[in-house]
Amino acid sequence: MFRKRHPPTGAQPGTLVIAADALAPQFRVMRYKPSSLHEQDVGRYSDLSKSLSDDTVSWIDVQGLGDEVALRSIASQFHMHPLALEDVVNVPQRPKLERFDDQLLIILRMTRPPKGRRFDSEQISIVVGPNYVITLQEKYGDVFNPVRARIRQGGPIFRSSGTAYLVYALLDAVIDGYYPLLESYGHSMDELEETITTNPQPAALTQLHRLRKDFSSMRRAIWPVREVISELARDETPLITERARQHLRDCQDHCVQIIDVVEIFREMASSLMDLHLSTLANKQNEVMKTLTIMASVFIPLTFIAGIYGMNFENMPELGVAWAYPAVLGLMAFLGALMMALFWFNGWLGGAKKEE
Amino acid sequence: MFRKRHPPTGAQPGTLVIAADALAPQFRVMRYKPSSLHEQDVGRYSDLSKSLSDDTVSWIDVQGLGDEVALRSIASQFHMHPLALEDVVNVPQRPKLERFDDQLLIILRMTRPPKGRRFDSEQISIVVGPNYVITLQEKYGDVFNPVRARIRQGGPIFRSSGTAYLVYALLDAVIDGYYPLLESYGHSMDELEETITTNPQPAALTQLHRLRKDFSSMRRAIWPVREVISELARDETPLITERARQHLRDCQDHCVQIIDVVEIFREMASSLMDLHLSTLANKQNEVMKTLTIMASVFIPLTFIAGIYGMNFENMPELGVAWAYPAVLGLMAFLGALMMALFWFNGWLGGAKKEE
Amino acid sequence: MFRKRHPPTGAQPGTLVIAADALAPQFRVMRYKPSSLHEQDVGRYSDLSKSLSDDTVSWIDVQGLGDEVALRSIASQFHMHPLALEDVVNVPQRPKLERFDDQLLIILRMTRPPKGRRFDSEQISIVVGPNYVITLQEKYGDVFNPVRARIRQGGPIFRSSGTAYLVYALLDAVIDGYYPLLESYGHSMDELEETITTNPQPAALTQLHRLRKDFSSMRRAIWPVREVISELARDETPLITERARQHLRDCQDHCVQIIDVVEIFREMASSLMDLHLSTLANKQNEVMKTLTIMASVFIPLTFIAGIYGMNFENMPELGVAWAYPAVLGLMAFLGALMMALFWFNGWLGGAKKEE
Amino acid sequence: MFRKRHPPTGAQPGTLVIAADALAPQFRVMRYKPSSLHEQDVGRYSDLSKSLSDDTVSWIDVQGLGDEVALRSIASQFHMHPLALEDVVNVPQRPKLERFDDQLLIILRMTRPPKGRRFDSEQISIVVGPNYVITLQEKYGDVFNPVRARIRQGGPIFRSSGTAYLVYALLDAVIDGYYPLLESYGHSMDELEETITTNPQPAALTQLHRLRKDFSSMRRAIWPVREVISELARDETPLITERARQHLRDCQDHCVQIIDVVEIFREMASSLMDLHLSTLANKQNEVMKTLTIMASVFIPLTFIAGIYGMNFENMPELGVAWAYPAVLGLMAFLGALMMALFWFNGWLGGAKKEE
Amino acid sequence: MFRKRHPPTGAQPGTLVIAADALAPQFRVMRYKPSSLHEQDVGRYSDLSKSLSDDTVSWIDVQGLGDEVALRSIASQFHMHPLALEDVVNVPQRPKLERFDDQLLIILRMTRPPKGRRFDSEQISIVVGPNYVITLQEKYGDVFNPVRARIRQGGPIFRSSGTAYLVYALLDAVIDGYYPLLESYGHSMDELEETITTNPQPAALTQLHRLRKDFSSMRRAIWPVREVISELARDETPLITERARQHLRDCQDHCVQIIDVVEIFREMASSLMDLHLSTLANKQNEVMKTLTIMASVFIPLTFIAGIYGMNFENMPELGVAWAYPAVLGLMAFLGALMMALFWFNGWLGGAKKEE
Repeated sequence: MFRKRHPPTGAQPGTLVIAADALAPQFRVMRYKPSSLHEQDVGRYSDLSKSLSDDTVSWIDVQGLGDEVALRSIASQFHMHPLALEDVVNVPQRPKLERFDDQLLIILRMTRPPKGRRFDSEQISIVVGPNYVITLQEKYGDVFNPVRARIRQGGPIFRSSGTAYLVYALLDAVIDGYYPLLESYGHSMDELEETITTNPQPAALTQLHRLRKDFSSMRRAIWPVREVISELARDETPLITERARQHLRDCQDHCVQIIDVVEIFREMASSLMDLHLSTLANKQNEVMKTLTIMASVFIPLTFIAGIYGMNFENMPELGVAWAYPAVLGLMAFLGALMMALFWFNGWLGGAKKEE
Repeated sequence: MFRKRHPPTGAQPGTLVIAADALAPQFRVMRYKPSSLHEQDVGRYSDLSKSLSDDTVSWIDVQGLGDEVALRSIASQFHMHPLALEDVVNVPQRPKLERFDDQLLIILRMTRPPKGRRFDSEQISIVVGPNYVITLQEKYGDVFNPVRARIRQGGPIFRSSGTAYLVYALLDAVIDGYYPLLESYGHSMDELEETITTNPQPAALTQLHRLRKDFSSMRRAIWPVREVISELARDETPLITERARQHLRDCQDHCVQIIDVVEIFREMASSLMDLHLSTLANKQNEVMKTLTIMASVFIPLTFIAGIYGMNFENMPELGVAWAYPAVLGLMAFLGALMMALFWFNGWLGGAKKEE
Repeated sequence: MFRKRHPPTGAQPGTLVIAADALAPQFRVMRYKPSSLHEQDVGRYSDLSKSLSDDTVSWIDVQGLGDEVALRSIASQFHMHPLALEDVVNVPQRPKLERFDDQLLIILRMTRPPKGRRFDSEQISIVVGPNYVITLQEKYGDVFNPVRARIRQGGPIFRSSGTAYLVYALLDAVIDGYYPLLESYGHSMDELEETITTNPQPAALTQLHRLRKDFSSMRRAIWPVREVISELARDETPLITERARQHLRDCQDHCVQIIDVVEIFREMASSLMDLHLSTLANKQNEVMKTLTIMASVFIPLTFIAGIYGMNFENMPELGVAWAYPAVLGLMAFLGALMMALFWFNGWLGGAKKEE
Repeated sequence: MFRKRHPPTGAQPGTLVIAADALAPQFRVMRYKPSSLHEQDVGRYSDLSKSLSDDTVSWIDVQGLGDEVALRSIASQFHMHPLALEDVVNVPQRPKLERFDDQLLIILRMTRPPKGRRFDSEQISIVVGPNYVITLQEKYGDVFNPVRARIRQGGPIFRSSGTAYLVYALLDAVIDGYYPLLESYGHSMDELEETITTNPQPAALTQLHRLRKDFSSMRRAIWPVREVISELARDETPLITERARQHLRDCQDHCVQIIDVVEIFREMASSLMDLHLSTLANKQNEVMKTLTIMASVFIPLTFIAGIYGMNFENMPELGVAWAYPAVLGLMAFLGALMMALFWFNGWLGGAKKEE
Repeated sequence: MFRKRHPPTGAQPGTLVIAADALAPQFRVMRYKPSSLHEQDVGRYSDLSKSLSDDTVSWIDVQGLGDEVALRSIASQFHMHPLALEDVVNVPQRPKLERFDDQLLIILRMTRPPKGRRFDSEQISIVVGPNYVITLQEKYGDVFNPVRARIRQGGPIFRSSGTAYLVYALLDAVIDGYYPLLESYGHSMDELEETITTNPQPAALTQLHRLRKDFSSMRRAIWPVREVISELARDETPLITERARQHLRDCQDHCVQIIDVVEIFREMASSLMDLHLSTLANKQNEVMKTLTIMASVFIPLTFIAGIYGMNFENMPELGVAWAYPAVLGLMAFLGALMMALFWFNGWLGGAKKEE
């Protein structure tokens, strides 16, 4: 996840690296003011900036980054800095907030539907201008449907609160997207704990290692977001209204809470690894004890049987009538003695508390 | 504990998520001034704000958050911000201090009677206004009975010191609630240490893992409280009087002390895990030595017996009269030799200091 | 050590918790100016404040905190804040510096003569006023005898330097009390290292765990002291003279040095735990090799003897005259072969360097 | 890599330490303005400063530091501080930014083509003046070819943006050089994980240890770069233009991203070590179980066979006709019983889930 | 190393603790100005301050601290603060910078020739006045010979740059003294890695533990030096000239580099400990496999031989002519089968990749 699709070393800044299998961009525009909403799937990208107006907010949603001409056209229509465009296209970048003259660029990692419980995410770039917001992402599909629904509903607050509120809503949706993921990881951890305690299997180990990897990735994805939102809430820029700042602080609390949970998961994963090792050592101890008991009881007895199996001519005991039962008795006694010793040492679950 | 009951991703801020089995709210009001105390279980929540007056302090205690209509009514009576109400209801939130125009919102984790020694806690939200304090919590029962007792007693300080002193008393009660818990954990740790040193059992391991989980949770619950109180003591707000600040600093000392103890517990738990592994390895070494001694002594002897149990016709020794006692003697000598070697190597608790 | 004797949850601030077996307080007063010294064991505590005067320094030393009436009397004579008295009595508190209007309260942990090399300490509270210093502690006996000796000697500096210098001398004595302790721990660590390297015993493990516990406690006891002294040296209060500040900085250096040593001890303890585990694993490897060599050499030979001990009628080898010596020779050869293989694998301390 | 080629202890500052096998310096100059480019391999180093002019940027590229006379000549032509020259020659230095009156000295670590996947790097020193940039490095070959290509292409931005932009381009090339390396390490880690999970070999361990070493080195090489660039971007110096600052911030983002990846690698390496230990313990458990099952099943049976191989005259069972099949049956039953017990204990992959 | 020779607890500040076997002080003075140098071994210490003059720099070098009278005389001649003298004599102190009215006291740890590769160091105290520098140390011999050589050489810079430059030269010599040490540790680590990978011995473990101890000590010795130099370079004192500040920053870079290397060593030592444990576990696994293979192959065969060694009268197989070769064949088949199974499980280095 953290391998950057980077331009050739030392290339000109602003060089875009577009993979051969990149998806063709789809454009969707929502333009709204308190009294109206205009929603449109746009085919031609060359007129996107023309329909901006001061009393509406335009949300231009670009999914798929596979067409350099289109991307450069958008960048020039909205006066994006070449480095901003590079950050948008050459994913993944670290989550960050970049300030330009009359624009903000916010880069975040948005969760995607998990594949087989693994953490999956992609970069979402949000370009914020005075009366427009552009979101750009590589793949189709996002976590913003609830935001769209709220715009359509046309609640009094949303449509009259400008771009700042839209930005907040998008950030909030991205951050809320982590909660179901955390829940799923919580279940995985509980199951693993169960498995490891009762029946430590190699498979559990590998799964634990994968979880640790995911937690590492999540941590790196969510930590900088805290800073991004905090900067946004403190920023002097007129693009963020006072009202939105209050909401952003709430958003930041959620972000910190997610960080907390990820940290707890990391600690637990490390504790589980210890638990696994100890459980294994315990099991091995059991196995060793079994072996030792069996061997220690029977090896001496077999030795005795071996003695009387020797073929010396002069072995007077062999002729004694009660010798056989006597030897059998001796064997039984020795076996019992060994077992008693082991019991006394606590190997059979008895005695030996005082060590 | 840290799984947030979160609204659907991207929902409108202020959306309340109320579980189906949430408890119906119970309202209790204590209204006091130096000369009088009015205490009441309130059935109708719509008049709560009417009885406020400037020379009394009203403590409105809400237990159970299962009625959205009631909660919204209270929020509007006391002009709570929608995000404040969301933080109160969509538990758990991270402990924090939120400032609004003429209100403070304090969110803490309050310990609950432990279930089988496990750390249990719930969110307590404290809304502080000029002449009222509202506490809201999800379940019935709290740690505030001593505070109530002190109000009823009517000591000269308490009733004449305004809301700030009441807030301090509540915070103090919440923080003091951690002490018995720590004591109980201290006992658990001592017992575990005893168990692990004498008789390392798988059960001890699992318990240790659970304790580490609890310590992680406690740490996350109590760390931010320090910051909350420190902010409160430094804050410029007129809601907190100079006198209360001195008390809050005392409160903060207690909080730091609890953090200290939790950190020590965490270190000890980790040291205990090491101790467990080492004790196990020691025990396994004992078992292995026993096995090796038994096997090494008897396997060669059995081999000798096996030789003279062979049926070759031409084995002249077999006919010699003193051969049998001689072989027995050889066996005894070899056995003694092996034991001596083991003793010399220190496996039997003797010699071999100089390695 | 860190379990606070805490008042019932939510009790009124200032509530004193006095154990049933608390010692009765003993009062000793030293009142000095450059030209005179008045030293006295006081029976009645009610007149303590009367003999204060502006040109003398009074050191009131209270040992034993078992009498609430006496304590409250002193507090009121010297105008101590109720929270200050609570911090003095409800031990242990975290080391801290508390500022009141014309008083400072310094709380430290003073070492006590170690019991069987374990870290033992108690809280010493120092109340500093313009012309008096009150020290309060729970048990009898302290580390201040050298300070008393210096006052009696009447060196020109001490008696003419006011309360600030006395406070410095007390702090210095408390901090110097840690050095012999560190030395004793250093010896323990060296012994443990010796034991663990040569002969890893379960007892060493338990001792190591105890040491780690002690180091944890010491760390928590001494860390905050650094901050206390640093605050004292920076403080604007007229109670601390410029001259005393220079001495306090020296004191702080010692404190930091103690912290350094404790940190080194902690690292070493953790390294010793690793060493123990590795040494054990090494020993176990030795044991396993012995077992494997014995078993691998003799088990095949015993099998051969077993074959010729079978009673089949048609075993032509049995009748051959040289068969017996031939089989014995084969056995010797096989045994030697096995030993050679083990030697070549480096299990007997030979060959096999090239792996 | 981190062993400094240091002058004799206490030598005069500015002493240069030149190894006997140091490469002879090669000088290459690129001098450009928007309208022209002059590129030259220079043989005589004594005239380098003469061709500077205010409207061109001169990039003097020195590869090989084996000629003290040449180095001192350059230093005096460009008025370099003696300590600056020492830092350039006595490699390796820590990455840093040093400010002199009208010069900046930037020291970085530049990756070199990896040798067998190991991290290899060398120091690159960049001296920045008003109209010249000098790069100095020890070996031949660098990562700057793309920069040279862009200068030759003569894009409008590059050639007209002064030394600041050239410095940015060099820094960017150095930092981009880390990406292919990280990718290669990523592959190594994936392979190692595969190996360790399926077939933990000693070789994997050694490789893991080497990787950890490399990550440690990379971390120390890249961490301070972040600070260098950040200082450069914040610096007041007129040598860095406002435009270049924006680019430097982008450069810093890449640097932080590399740090992030290195940190993740470090965590993963440590988790892989745990995984290795656990996998080994698991395998050992399997081996032990096999041994224990074999021994526990056959040792008692062999003992029974031993009994009836004894040669006592009075063993009535021997004469009973059905005794032999009965004993064989008993043996079969006992063997089956043991196997059933092991199966029930879960050692054969069955039962025993409820522990 | 870190055990302070401390005065009796609570002794008067300024008390000097001089060991019985402390060396007698030797005094050497170098007094220089650009045009002249006066060098002298001084017998009488009482006139040291008389020969100071404003246009010369006097370096008074005191080796051996065994004479309290001499030390006090020097302290009074140069107006040293009693606490300064205490810090000089009661070694070791933590490295620090102490400011007095017109003096600086710098305390550092100077490396000494290593004893058998162990880190050895002693305290060097540098007292800096307007026209003199006093260095004091406990033992004879130091790292300052190159500094003396440079003074004698009389380079134009050194002799005309006042005390500040001399102080810089001394600090630089102390810090450079760490480099050969680091190199030697680097070799030790490489050798240890070699040993641990090929042939993990208990001796390697003990050596590793000692190295960790040394790294801990070095870290504590060098960390505070960074702060000392940085304070010195930032300080407002007229004793340090602007020119010396530039040199001190260079010195600080070296100090940070040493810290970096020590940190890498610490990480590597910890990784080596892991490597050791894993290598051991690998070896043990090999041993266990050998044992298990031997036992599993031969124990069943021995059992079969045991059966036909029983003496039952009615064992019809015994009379069958081809029974003996048939049993031998069965044994060979079973043995081969076991080996095949082990091979298939990958225990013999074959198959079993697919797990």
